[in-house]
Amino acid sequence: MSAVPGGPLPAALAGDADDPGRSRRARAWLSRAFEPGTAEVVRWVEQQGPVAAVRALLRGSAPPRVLALAGSRLAEDRTADDLAAAARIGARLVTPEDEEWPTVALHCLTLAAAGGDQGGDRTTALVPPLALWVRGRPRLDHATVRSVAVVGSRASTAYGNHVAADLAAGLADRGWSTVSGGALGIDAAAHRGALAAGGTTVAVLACGVDRVYPRQHEALFAAVLAEGLLVSEWPPGCASLGHRFLVRNRLIAALTAGTVVVEAAARSGAQATAHRARGLGKVVMAVPGPVTSAMSVGCHQLLRADDGVQLVSSAAEVLEAVGELGVDLADPPARPDDVRDDLPDVARRVLDACPVRVGVPPERLAAIAGCAELDALRVLPVLELHGLVERTGTGWRVARGRSPGVHAR
Amino acid sequence: MSAVPGGPLPAALAGDADDPGRSRRARAWLSRAFEPGTAEVVRWVEQQGPVAAVRALLRGSAPPRVLALAGSRLAEDRTADDLAAAARIGARLVTPEDEEWPTVALHCLTLAAAGGDQGGDRTTALVPPLALWVRGRPRLDHATVRSVAVVGSRASTAYGNHVAADLAAGLADRGWSTVSGGALGIDAAAHRGALAAGGTTVAVLACGVDRVYPRQHEALFAAVLAEGLLVSEWPPGCASLGHRFLVRNRLIAALTAGTVVVEAAARSGAQATAHRARGLGKVVMAVPGPVTSAMSVGCHQLLRADDGVQLVSSAAEVLEAVGELGVDLADPPARPDDVRDDLPDVARRVLDACPVRVGVPPERLAAIAGCAELDALRVLPVLELHGLVERTGTGWRVARGRSPGVHAR
Repeated sequence: MSAVPGGPLPAALAGDADDPGRSRRARAWLSRAFEPGTAEVVRWVEQQGPVAAVRALLRGSAPPRVLALAGSRLAEDRTADDLAAAARIGARLVTPEDEEWPTVALHCLTLAAAGGDQGGDRTTALVPPLALWVRGRPRLDHATVRSVAVVGSRASTAYGNHVAADLAAGLADRGWSTVSGGALGIDAAAHRGALAAGGTTVAVLACGVDRVYPRQHEALFAAVLAEGLLVSEWPPGCASLGHRFLVRNRLIAALTAGTVVVEAAARSGAQATAHRARGLGKVVMAVPGPVTSAMSVGCHQLLRADDGVQLVSSAAEVLEAVGELGVDLADPPARPDDVRDDLPDVARRVLDACPVRVGVPPERLAAIAGCAELDALRVLPVLELHGLVERTGTGWRVARGRSPGVHAR
Repeated sequence: MSAVPGGPLPAALAGDADDPGRSRRARAWLSRAFEPGTAEVVRWVEQQGPVAAVRALLRGSAPPRVLALAGSRLAEDRTADDLAAAARIGARLVTPEDEEWPTVALHCLTLAAAGGDQGGDRTTALVPPLALWVRGRPRLDHATVRSVAVVGSRASTAYGNHVAADLAAGLADRGWSTVSGGALGIDAAAHRGALAAGGTTVAVLACGVDRVYPRQHEALFAAVLAEGLLVSEWPPGCASLGHRFLVRNRLIAALTAGTVVVEAAARSGAQATAHRARGLGKVVMAVPGPVTSAMSVGCHQLLRADDGVQLVSSAAEVLEAVGELGVDLADPPARPDDVRDDLPDVARRVLDACPVRVGVPPERLAAIAGCAELDALRVLPVLELHGLVERTGTGWRVARGRSPGVHAR
């Protein structure tokens, strides 16, 4: 389907002005037209709104620089194909207009992009995505609201794999999800560790969510989809090009409360990743290892650089670094006569699964707590009666009245 | 030999008033009479001078607290025996009146002791020694002027032993000596690493320098004596009592430019050692290890405590932390047309062996450089001609005029 200026109405612009699908289609079109990471494009699109932006681009009335960045992609309209391809594999396009858009997490990128010129290197720029292709059941905001990035070398050691899996499992045990890049090595170990502990994990890819890269990860990606999400800025069918990994990395940092580098070689991308995460106001952590291991040199370099990178050796220490004060402390002091102590096991697990801020639906709580949804539905009213949880528009969360620390995880 | 008040003149006070041996004998007596680590005793002795202090103690005119601290030891005078025992094994008593007393290094303890009450716990007090029993050839000040403490657990792992030996060897390669406690585990590995690289090493003991504790270290102590020193605050024959190890630890920190903790278990003495070294204004460093190793937990706790403990993974990084700025940087930039580049190998090694501050005699330079003393004597005038070294009262050192960095180690 072609959509040269003056041609037939493109799929991206079909429908009434008040059709909410129209802005989604416009963002699908934009997601195909532009490589992510250019602040200029994103600022202009968000000023115009997506539909007006697409119209201006097709009419040739967009700013010349923006027109030039789309280039020959202006001539094609694969919107309907891309959305159909996504639908076929159970994926969806999530846009800033959607309720599940991770607005709070991505605010750091919006701020950074508004801050003006970042030197023109798209691979290091801090720019929010125009839209995200998401595959999997959980809501994107729910899956990332309490999440940590666990990343590292593809050429990891058995030690690194063990630690990455252990950290992710420990995070899952405490109701936190693990975000990583779906790559070989540390990324894969982190995803697997989260899954093994029954937790949620999110793989942010540098290719379409219909692609499996690396090929060896067919089973891993299927397992991630069973409990978590595959996320990408690129439409279905797009390949993992080298520069896309670098552009993608900012999203992993932005979506999470902090980034843990588990293993990294000397002068690897770890420094750049850490620097960007710090630039976004996120906590950056590194796991030490044997000084005799080449794969720990990058971590030690980060820790020696003394720009606030924190040494962590356990999930508890990770949550101490990123957690809300008093809520996720590594070792909350014991509290006598807590009503929680008398709760039945399932009720306690469901309570521990409740997030502090954004309420989540019972089926999600059941998944985190490791019980049947029916069990969760049965105990939630009891917990509410005790004043331990409360209902919000999006589901259940820890009751605001509870003093911090009582909700020990 | 007894010396009750009013009895015959004790050996400690024999000799003319202007006999320099008299103050040495007085300090030998004091070294037997008092357990080290009490600021009150040391302040009083240094105010009186050692001979007057002994006289006041024997007359009973010393302050009651000081008399009480000596207790029944007042009744014995083993000075002559102790000095004879030391002489038999080639040991000597080094006192603040001697040229080889490490005045600069121990100044931090003098300052701390002058700072007043330290809470009364002798095992953690920062108090200078009254005298030091020293066994071995090098001068104590020369052997410690460019030294680092490498310490850690007795129950070390193969990894820890490897790293300790490697650090000590790397320090030796750069002309720095390694100070440790002569214990099993990390201490032994550090001493051995220094010796294997032909370097100087100093074992600061919690027993007399005639004793071998632990017994397994008979060969190690003999090897240390061939190149370095055994040092103790306690007279010959004294046993390693538990509290003496803790009192001894402050000396290891004080004598060195910095302390590296290689392996330590959780809640081990490493924290206390590090805290005291910091209190003395010394650099404290820790080597990371696998987060899965119980023997690295104490190091990681130190590094996480964020009170200035530095992560180090190599001798170069240790010297970067403790070294004089611009002189011992880990990777000094290459300098073209340096006259050093044209030096014959032996001359270069002798130059590298020269200290920056206190000049050392040619035989010591030869030992560090790994050449015959005759070779050192042959090349030193050439180096002086090039303006690279200069002669001082105590021997040879790097010429002051040389810009920092040229003397790359």
